Amino acid sequence: MSSLVTLTTDFGDASPYVAVMKGVILSLNPSARLVDLSHHIPPQDIRHADYYLGTAIPFFPKGTVHVAVIDPGVGSDRHPLLIEAGGRFLVGPDNGVFTRAVKALGKPVRVRRLSEPRFWRPTVSDTFHGRDVFAPVAAHLSLGTDPAQMGPVVGEMVELKTCSAVCWGSRRAGEVQFVDEFGNLITNIPAAQLKSHALRVSVGGAETLAARWVRTYSDAAQGEVVSLASSDGFVEVAVVNGSAASRLGAGVGSAVELHCG
Amino acid sequence: MSSLVTLTTDFGDASPYVAVMKGVILSLNPSARLVDLSHHIPPQDIRHADYYLGTAIPFFPKGTVHVAVIDPGVGSDRHPLLIEAGGRFLVGPDNGVFTRAVKALGKPVRVRRLSEPRFWRPTVSDTFHGRDVFAPVAAHLSLGTDPAQMGPVVGEMVELKTCSAVCWGSRRAGEVQFVDEFGNLITNIPAAQLKSHALRVSVGGAETLAARWVRTYSDAAQGEVVSLASSDGFVEVAVVNGSAASRLGAGVGSAVELHCG
Amino acid sequence: MSSLVTLTTDFGDASPYVAVMKGVILSLNPSARLVDLSHHIPPQDIRHADYYLGTAIPFFPKGTVHVAVIDPGVGSDRHPLLIEAGGRFLVGPDNGVFTRAVKALGKPVRVRRLSEPRFWRPTVSDTFHGRDVFAPVAAHLSLGTDPAQMGPVVGEMVELKTCSAVCWGSRRAGEVQFVDEFGNLITNIPAAQLKSHALRVSVGGAETLAARWVRTYSDAAQGEVVSLASSDGFVEVAVVNGSAASRLGAGVGSAVELHCG
Repeated sequence: MSSLVTLTTDFGDASPYVAVMKGVILSLNPSARLVDLSHHIPPQDIRHADYYLGTAIPFFPKGTVHVAVIDPGVGSDRHPLLIEAGGRFLVGPDNGVFTRAVKALGKPVRVRRLSEPRFWRPTVSDTFHGRDVFAPVAAHLSLGTDPAQMGPVVGEMVELKTCSAVCWGSRRAGEVQFVDEFGNLITNIPAAQLKSHALRVSVGGAETLAARWVRTYSDAAQGEVVSLASSDGFVEVAVVNGSAASRLGAGVGSAVELHCG
Repeated sequence: MSSLVTLTTDFGDASPYVAVMKGVILSLNPSARLVDLSHHIPPQDIRHADYYLGTAIPFFPKGTVHVAVIDPGVGSDRHPLLIEAGGRFLVGPDNGVFTRAVKALGKPVRVRRLSEPRFWRPTVSDTFHGRDVFAPVAAHLSLGTDPAQMGPVVGEMVELKTCSAVCWGSRRAGEVQFVDEFGNLITNIPAAQLKSHALRVSVGGAETLAARWVRTYSDAAQGEVVSLASSDGFVEVAVVNGSAASRLGAGVGSAVELHCG
Repeated sequence: MSSLVTLTTDFGDASPYVAVMKGVILSLNPSARLVDLSHHIPPQDIRHADYYLGTAIPFFPKGTVHVAVIDPGVGSDRHPLLIEAGGRFLVGPDNGVFTRAVKALGKPVRVRRLSEPRFWRPTVSDTFHGRDVFAPVAAHLSLGTDPAQMGPVVGEMVELKTCSAVCWGSRRAGEVQFVDEFGNLITNIPAAQLKSHALRVSVGGAETLAARWVRTYSDAAQGEVVSLASSDGFVEVAVVNGSAASRLGAGVGSAVELHCG
């Protein structure tokens, strides 16, 4: 049993929330090995967190406990979940934040509703389940507690709607699934499916632009609109030393159409 | 003896100061288990750090060594301290940064002035006691060194003046003790003391506003001024998806008056 | 063999790149002890990273593996390196990012070109060698793999040109080697070489200003241009509670001339 516990939140650095969660976990399991993923998920941005976690979590070893607290519905009737997927433990709110991670981790998947207060803090606030529910559950999991004790398996969980890219002839249509901090647009169109690299691109229904295919940013000229394979294998649209998001007026969910050749 | 050492500073990410402190600790005790709390305390903001630490530290297990370097008086005649409180070790400058933590941790409390250079780096700069005094002292504590060897018990330490909330009839008067990064105002008025939740609030002597009590942000309308129980049990005044600090012109220390019912 | 692995990147918090690297390392060596130095090196700023690493790395114990991914040339023909210096392991691109660290760590120095794909991920992308080459190499080193297996010793590596300060009579000439986040200018002029502390300073060829020598910031008046010894022993030029970089129009590489007395 690994005692690795990763933490991902939208709490930032100013408030003591992340530190409090670390204290709760280490008080229950002083041997837990905490790994910060990010505490700068844009506030309440479940889609951003879903992409982030879906990309990162599969790289961690089996047995790792992953806690995510991006939780705009805290205190409402959304459920707290423990998901077992591909040998990992995912702990967080039932709001879709683990949609991609669960798909990437693969079977077996078991979704449990956390229902056993003996694994929580004695009183549970309306505003901070990260401290009161998710952190203590993660600590108990890292100690080897059987997930079956923590709550019943439930039939379903909230999943974010993700659309798949489609192709017909030389066209590929999809959407922007992530915008990184430099404004690069990562689409959901697999780079491996392209028939040619002579691409023209239209984002959000706007005019079609040439987007020269490059292997890396170092092959491109300053300010040029280019396309390349993102490090996770999708078509990425970028403006070198600029922001493709601003230049093309695009964001997560913007439609993308590619013309190959 | 736990080997957990937490670090809290206002050093940010650009300069190598935090990394240097980690190296100093790990060179003295390669088994030390470092936990970052925050390195983004607003520069030299002792009040912010005091609230942060007072909230977070009590959640950590006994034996943990907590280092805080928010130290505008470094190089002046302010003393370096080691405080033993409630079984924890607090290491940092004598400037009040541990005022709330000491109160929260409870007895026994012993305040020592760090006076034994053999537990420091061989030369001590005028500007970086985090590296030269506090980090090595923390490393030695994590190795099990007896605090009594590190300096004499002193009678007192600098404490920040914190005012308590008062109540008379249906009124509660206090102050803002923390402003989080979203501009939410956390007062020092215990939420449990409210007689009713039909609140009107006046901040900084300004006009009195209705501040509907909500259980969580998800119960409130965009832009509405609301009040709720903060996760640490105080009355919090917030503007949903806005900044109560800007809207009400308030900051840490602003007077708060509540009218219940 | 220490299993400490430090990570320094310019990846920031928004994208999952840092988290992915942590997962890769921990999957290969679940006992690796990760230490974040900074993930906020200004994007592609090799000079900034070089100063950062040159200052921080020497404080870490022998056997530590230091990974740096500030890598504008990823995917081009720049080589991936493993440098052994002073008993530490430095893993990253051959672009000069370890210039100062290698000088500070001292002999013996052995520079290897990473050439053995069996220590990498099975497929290597054009854009993310941090994940595909550097992280797995660091994990293998932390497991005790002999560096000699990872690639041949090469004669040289890219080094950043750093100029040394010169002195003649009462003058000292050098350059700004680092600008911290407050705009303080850290020069390359050793403070110990000053003949007097009655300094006048000219930066970037601009007019010569008095820059009163202070022991610490707490000795200076708000807005005053002062000079002091930086915590790493160089002459630092600062504007108290202001930015010397903006006030003097200076940045990394700006010429600095000091007149003593």
